[in-house]
Amino acid sequence: MITYGIWPSASTLVFSFYLLTFVFLVIDPYLRLHIMKPSIPKGTRDFSPEEMIKRDYIFDTVRNVFRLYGYQPIETPAMENLSTLLGKYGEEGDKLLFRILNSGDFLSSVSDEDLAGRELSKLASAICERGLRYDLTVPFARYVVQHREEIVFPFRRYQIQPVWRADRPQKGRYREFFQCDVDIIGSNSLLGEYELIRIVDEVFRRLKIGVIIKINNRKILSGIAEILDESARITDITVAVDKLDKIGLEGVNRELAERGVASAAIEKLQPIIMLTGTKEDKLRELETILSGSVTGLKGIDEMRLLFSYLGDAGPEDMAELDLTLARGLNYYTGAIIEVKARDVAIGSICGGGRYDNLTGGFGLEGVSGVGVSFGADRIYDVLTQLNLFEARNESQTRVLLLNFGENEVLYALKIRDRLAGAGICSEIYPDAVKLKKQMSYADSRRIPYIVMAGEEEIRSNEVTVKNMATGEQSRISPDGLPEFLKP
Amino acid sequence: MITYGIWPSASTLVFSFYLLTFVFLVIDPYLRLHIMKPSIPKGTRDFSPEEMIKRDYIFDTVRNVFRLYGYQPIETPAMENLSTLLGKYGEEGDKLLFRILNSGDFLSSVSDEDLAGRELSKLASAICERGLRYDLTVPFARYVVQHREEIVFPFRRYQIQPVWRADRPQKGRYREFFQCDVDIIGSNSLLGEYELIRIVDEVFRRLKIGVIIKINNRKILSGIAEILDESARITDITVAVDKLDKIGLEGVNRELAERGVASAAIEKLQPIIMLTGTKEDKLRELETILSGSVTGLKGIDEMRLLFSYLGDAGPEDMAELDLTLARGLNYYTGAIIEVKARDVAIGSICGGGRYDNLTGGFGLEGVSGVGVSFGADRIYDVLTQLNLFEARNESQTRVLLLNFGENEVLYALKIRDRLAGAGICSEIYPDAVKLKKQMSYADSRRIPYIVMAGEEEIRSNEVTVKNMATGEQSRISPDGLPEFLKP
Repeated sequence: MITYGIWPSASTLVFSFYLLTFVFLVIDPYLRLHIMKPSIPKGTRDFSPEEMIKRDYIFDTVRNVFRLYGYQPIETPAMENLSTLLGKYGEEGDKLLFRILNSGDFLSSVSDEDLAGRELSKLASAICERGLRYDLTVPFARYVVQHREEIVFPFRRYQIQPVWRADRPQKGRYREFFQCDVDIIGSNSLLGEYELIRIVDEVFRRLKIGVIIKINNRKILSGIAEILDESARITDITVAVDKLDKIGLEGVNRELAERGVASAAIEKLQPIIMLTGTKEDKLRELETILSGSVTGLKGIDEMRLLFSYLGDAGPEDMAELDLTLARGLNYYTGAIIEVKARDVAIGSICGGGRYDNLTGGFGLEGVSGVGVSFGADRIYDVLTQLNLFEARNESQTRVLLLNFGENEVLYALKIRDRLAGAGICSEIYPDAVKLKKQMSYADSRRIPYIVMAGEEEIRSNEVTVKNMATGEQSRISPDGLPEFLKP
Repeated sequence: MITYGIWPSASTLVFSFYLLTFVFLVIDPYLRLHIMKPSIPKGTRDFSPEEMIKRDYIFDTVRNVFRLYGYQPIETPAMENLSTLLGKYGEEGDKLLFRILNSGDFLSSVSDEDLAGRELSKLASAICERGLRYDLTVPFARYVVQHREEIVFPFRRYQIQPVWRADRPQKGRYREFFQCDVDIIGSNSLLGEYELIRIVDEVFRRLKIGVIIKINNRKILSGIAEILDESARITDITVAVDKLDKIGLEGVNRELAERGVASAAIEKLQPIIMLTGTKEDKLRELETILSGSVTGLKGIDEMRLLFSYLGDAGPEDMAELDLTLARGLNYYTGAIIEVKARDVAIGSICGGGRYDNLTGGFGLEGVSGVGVSFGADRIYDVLTQLNLFEARNESQTRVLLLNFGENEVLYALKIRDRLAGAGICSEIYPDAVKLKKQMSYADSRRIPYIVMAGEEEIRSNEVTVKNMATGEQSRISPDGLPEFLKP
């Protein structure tokens, strides 16, 4: 009965089915996602209200602790002169700076020959004078030098701002991310280090994140390089030793050799890298090994004093000695501090150290400081993974006033004024649409109460309040409403 | 007795005196200021702790009012794709965008011919894909379209972030400045306009700044253009009328003629521009004039309803009708709002309006919204000029603990822990320098109390507290200290 030519064959049917599937499952979503939707640059993020509330919780927590210890806020501009930024982060860092094209005729100082030469770094310098802030440390050093006559030293400052790096974006690494820096500058007292470790401890205690605080001292590392007769290779040694966690002892030894450290020196280094025992055991052992290095012994003294502050005035075992800690940053001259979450594998969530010459690059010598930086984005991820944000899923808005129409709304507006006067956050539904739609809005927004004031309520000068969680309804007078709704 | 040739002549003396004066008063400060000090890009600013506290006062105030009315925070990245930004602010705006040089080989898509051609805008587009945010409105529109499936409409959002414009810097105009935007989107109810005017009023009432809130309606302006038979020139007419304050009626008429408005139409326009009387007088007069324009009459209806909300539910005369108000922004389709300080001549400190098609540029039609933007920097200037910051010049730190040396400091650290536990902000002086220097630090930082704990106090387990304002000293036990120091 089936006439070939009119009815499609089975294979045609299958093909059509696949075609339709392709159109609906692949092309349509593609169009929706890629053509119609605008997007933001790779590695950057929008923050929704829910995320903002969580982020503010982190920022408020660190800010409150910083203030408790007398630290004061500053802010610096997003863009700095490239002369301020270049050369401060090594060659790699220079490449990761976002540069801002000069406005107006950006080619005015570029000759035809230079253009034809296509030399990227030369051209980039000619057409860009400014760049986006790469961290908060260099802008802070610049700030201190520029405003040194107004600043009262010792200067305790904190700074919570975004920074930008043209890094390859990946999970947990963004091109715009937020740092919370806290530094004390203009004193070389170890009370600075002690205070910052207390701040670190207090911040994570308030956030309920278990952490391991690791401490090292650059002077000890220098002393080690000295007795190994490899003083010129301090950087190589610390960079290699810093990788112990990642590549293991053998990997470190291979890297040391590759970096030109003599095999005798590598041999000598082994017991130092693998020291065990209590803090005091390690320090005593080190003292013997480093007895020939004035710098090394100074580092040990500093560690002892710092641990005595922590032991005497603070909780026992607040911080660990970790000789593999180097943080690769060459401007540290004394303590080096790093914080990891105990229960989440995510790298360091806070770190810093002592720098004796941070402002030297800007012509001001001999200003010593110590500081740490909290990585707000990683802390956010840790709190999410540990499910520590749970208590914060209710709207800040306490009550939604339903809209019953043009006449009734005037009554609702007066109620709202009363609530605002009592400091209770409320919303009025702007359109007199179906009540079901208004209620579902309250639901989606997780607003805990709704207030209804229709003809009947208005006549008796009352309102109906409904608890969205329990479904309970009460009729009360507007006078009693603020008290009723108070959290 | 004076031998010519050995003793200098009077004129030589005078010259030397001038030379020395020049060196000390001009060259030395010049070197100090211009060569040694690093600087920041023109039009940008650092914010000192004192300034931060004042700015936070403004931000906290607006934020608290926004929240009271159910608005939720969002943030968007500093950089947007240029495809998002270009064409949204007119040709002038495009020029004022800060563009970010592509990372890596930024010349990869530029041919040698294009380079040799030196065509600025073409080259800029080829080497820069991203730009800094120019305002908060366009990123918000982009946000709404991009996240429309997660957003619960009507969506009330606020956003407090810096924006960047490559404008010529001048007094009160910066290249990095801060906007506080508040919008309700996804509803065309006039309750939105009403709510925002209440918010504006409440913010400035809390800041104690007397303001004039002016309102107009784009539909009325369109109606006027229509009855003048100049519908194609709405923009020209509103731009010209907007300048009434600056260039006077004659200037406006001249500009209208220059922009090609027929002289008959200019004639007809005169009584409209110069309308007087109460709001209702003006609206009634306009109603007659605009009786032939459906759009114009719709605008009058909207104004009447809005004024009725303001009159019935809000304080009388909260907002003025001002037909010269156009704000030059073409995306407004309904209400136009502008706020000026009563007692400081500084231009508008807040403004906004209704837009029926904000998200149209991103492919999402028919989403109406209304919003206003507070200019934080101008508000700061107004508060400064009106001397309204005066009450905020005390340090957040309540007490400085003096440092008497290595042994005594351990006792002080324990006291500090106790204060921190009680939520009292304290500092410890990090170095055991002369007490006079420590006291002068407390003085410069305006810290109201100092605590001294030397050998004697420690022996009797007490501390000495000194009130820095009165000079009064008391000996008390550490237990009583938090209570004593509570603000």
